[in-house]
Amino acid sequence: MDKGRVAAFTDAVVAIVLTIMVLEFKTPEEPTFAALASEWSYFVAYLISFLFIGVAWYNHHYMFALTKRVTKSLYWVNNLWILVMAMLPVSTAWAGRFIMDVQPELFYFIIFTCWTLVYAALSYTVMRVNRKRHPEVARKIRCMPAYRVHVSVWFWLVWVIVLGLIFVWPPISLLFTLADLSMMAIRTSDDSDKLF
Amino acid sequence: MDKGRVAAFTDAVVAIVLTIMVLEFKTPEEPTFAALASEWSYFVAYLISFLFIGVAWYNHHYMFALTKRVTKSLYWVNNLWILVMAMLPVSTAWAGRFIMDVQPELFYFIIFTCWTLVYAALSYTVMRVNRKRHPEVARKIRCMPAYRVHVSVWFWLVWVIVLGLIFVWPPISLLFTLADLSMMAIRTSDDSDKLF
Amino acid sequence: MDKGRVAAFTDAVVAIVLTIMVLEFKTPEEPTFAALASEWSYFVAYLISFLFIGVAWYNHHYMFALTKRVTKSLYWVNNLWILVMAMLPVSTAWAGRFIMDVQPELFYFIIFTCWTLVYAALSYTVMRVNRKRHPEVARKIRCMPAYRVHVSVWFWLVWVIVLGLIFVWPPISLLFTLADLSMMAIRTSDDSDKLF
Amino acid sequence: MDKGRVAAFTDAVVAIVLTIMVLEFKTPEEPTFAALASEWSYFVAYLISFLFIGVAWYNHHYMFALTKRVTKSLYWVNNLWILVMAMLPVSTAWAGRFIMDVQPELFYFIIFTCWTLVYAALSYTVMRVNRKRHPEVARKIRCMPAYRVHVSVWFWLVWVIVLGLIFVWPPISLLFTLADLSMMAIRTSDDSDKLF
Repeated sequence: MDKGRVAAFTDAVVAIVLTIMVLEFKTPEEPTFAALASEWSYFVAYLISFLFIGVAWYNHHYMFALTKRVTKSLYWVNNLWILVMAMLPVSTAWAGRFIMDVQPELFYFIIFTCWTLVYAALSYTVMRVNRKRHPEVARKIRCMPAYRVHVSVWFWLVWVIVLGLIFVWPPISLLFTLADLSMMAIRTSDDSDKLF
Repeated sequence: MDKGRVAAFTDAVVAIVLTIMVLEFKTPEEPTFAALASEWSYFVAYLISFLFIGVAWYNHHYMFALTKRVTKSLYWVNNLWILVMAMLPVSTAWAGRFIMDVQPELFYFIIFTCWTLVYAALSYTVMRVNRKRHPEVARKIRCMPAYRVHVSVWFWLVWVIVLGLIFVWPPISLLFTLADLSMMAIRTSDDSDKLF
Repeated sequence: MDKGRVAAFTDAVVAIVLTIMVLEFKTPEEPTFAALASEWSYFVAYLISFLFIGVAWYNHHYMFALTKRVTKSLYWVNNLWILVMAMLPVSTAWAGRFIMDVQPELFYFIIFTCWTLVYAALSYTVMRVNRKRHPEVARKIRCMPAYRVHVSVWFWLVWVIVLGLIFVWPPISLLFTLADLSMMAIRTSDDSDKLF
Repeated sequence: MDKGRVAAFTDAVVAIVLTIMVLEFKTPEEPTFAALASEWSYFVAYLISFLFIGVAWYNHHYMFALTKRVTKSLYWVNNLWILVMAMLPVSTAWAGRFIMDVQPELFYFIIFTCWTLVYAALSYTVMRVNRKRHPEVARKIRCMPAYRVHVSVWFWLVWVIVLGLIFVWPPISLLFTLADLSMMAIRTSDDSDKLF
């Protein structure tokens, strides 16, 4: 398939997801900062989801820059990835509005977990479609920190602990996401920085 | 016309359609999964419409990868295709909200039927504009499973039966769409998988 | 400037304008076609505005395919064109909702008139920036039927008559737009059909 | 990184920001120009924000046309720029609705100030990543009027005065933005006008 067109379609969806999250900021009914400040918790959730998209896009860009083929299976796993991204406005709005409640924070945590799983599946699919003829591409994808962390035992051990802690102090869900995303933003493959 | 620009414009519309369907998920007013669960029927309709867009895009991509010309008539039939796609948020929202009612499900069924007709018209137009100088392109489009099914007698026989059953059990409309889309997602032209 | 990037930015705005007009369709509160049918007048206005965008895009595509330069002045006239296009959802929603009222129909008429003026200005700017080194491009733009009609005396004579008739029978505003757009859709430059 | 894809992603967000600001125009409930006219103050704010986007895009286009590298740090500063742009619909809606109130106008002023700072940071980053191997690019960016004004002492002197005046006559915030943007629209690098 046409790699450029699949990437452009993905980008369009991601850009719209990022921007419709802004619609959730309701224009304050009164001309006071107090009215504006009532949205602080959504703003926190929005910033984390913004970082989410930035990190997700960066890694997607790297994978699509490397892959030599876009097969039907890669297309559909990419669509699954888009589907999870499209859930972000819902989970962000809910978790941002009820930042101290267990269930909305758990929901955000579940969506984030789905994303890490689908992201690992996407990485795996890119490896698989390139393995035969372009083993060096498959190797590079396998070495991506974002991939290696999410298939490690340590990550899932921390994950279980955080899952339990959400029932004690719900916002840990957003903090964990923030920490994981920051780690992914900082630790990237060395050659992800060069011009493709 | 500039094939890339027409395809990019189409993609932008499709990406926005996919994403504004998310706006229909109302942020639950209460921090409970019970409040979230009340949206399950829309979620079902959303997933089917998401698959709809994935399948439609895949076939559109194949046709535009093959065609050697984008004429004025192809441009306008493509616009008609865009118009029907743009109706998807309306039909999905209504059919998802009233999943056990005849008229909303019938409406979804009508929009889907319009899409299959416009899709067949688009395929036919691509064939026609390439027939003379690129008969191999016309031949490939004619062999697309998505095209052959929708111009077959069998499809329309099943269609008539389903149309009748909607009055008995409305959700059959969504099930039929799901079945037809799954079939289109699985059975594709062999060379649709290669890099264009 | 980078012609492709300016065109892509323009396309993105036009695609979003086209799609957010769909948001104006409110999901019927009841599962009956009667509830859906109450939106018929907006649907009529929507279809005309959809045709509007199709015609506008076609002519924009032709002009940008031909122009050899995108100067700062062309960029800003193009932005003015985008600004008028962005008013379309407002005028369509209002004129579609109050199809028998003078003032909303007059508003639609005014926005359409602004568009024809800005469109003529855009055509003129493309001519001017190409006149010196690429006179054949300037000549082609001047020969575009869409340009020639809107700078003709006959068009503006009809325009004045329609303006008066709106006060008698408001929907003439939409009918006039439909007629003008249909004419522009049918009469196009011969070479607008070839692959650029 | 792939310069084209980063630019296209940025453009998509900017185009959506521009267009969702239109959603803030509520369709008048009555068919009278009086009802429409009640939105005049938002319309003023919308026009200024539209100019904002036009100017911001023009300068972004110039920087990305020149830069020879898109590094990870440039990607993240660009994301910060996108984040500030995404705040525009909120600040425009609020400042447009309460045009004579101190706090909404101050908010618009703060967002605009953030933008000038992030813009300067973006310019600086483009310089830094090109300095070594492409000093002529770094030099060109440093000479951009939009950059030089915002790092000058004069600009910040006027800025302090305007900040004080907002408490006396709030709309000065929008007027200052308009003046600054007009200056940036008129004074541009000479070679920003040529085809890249």
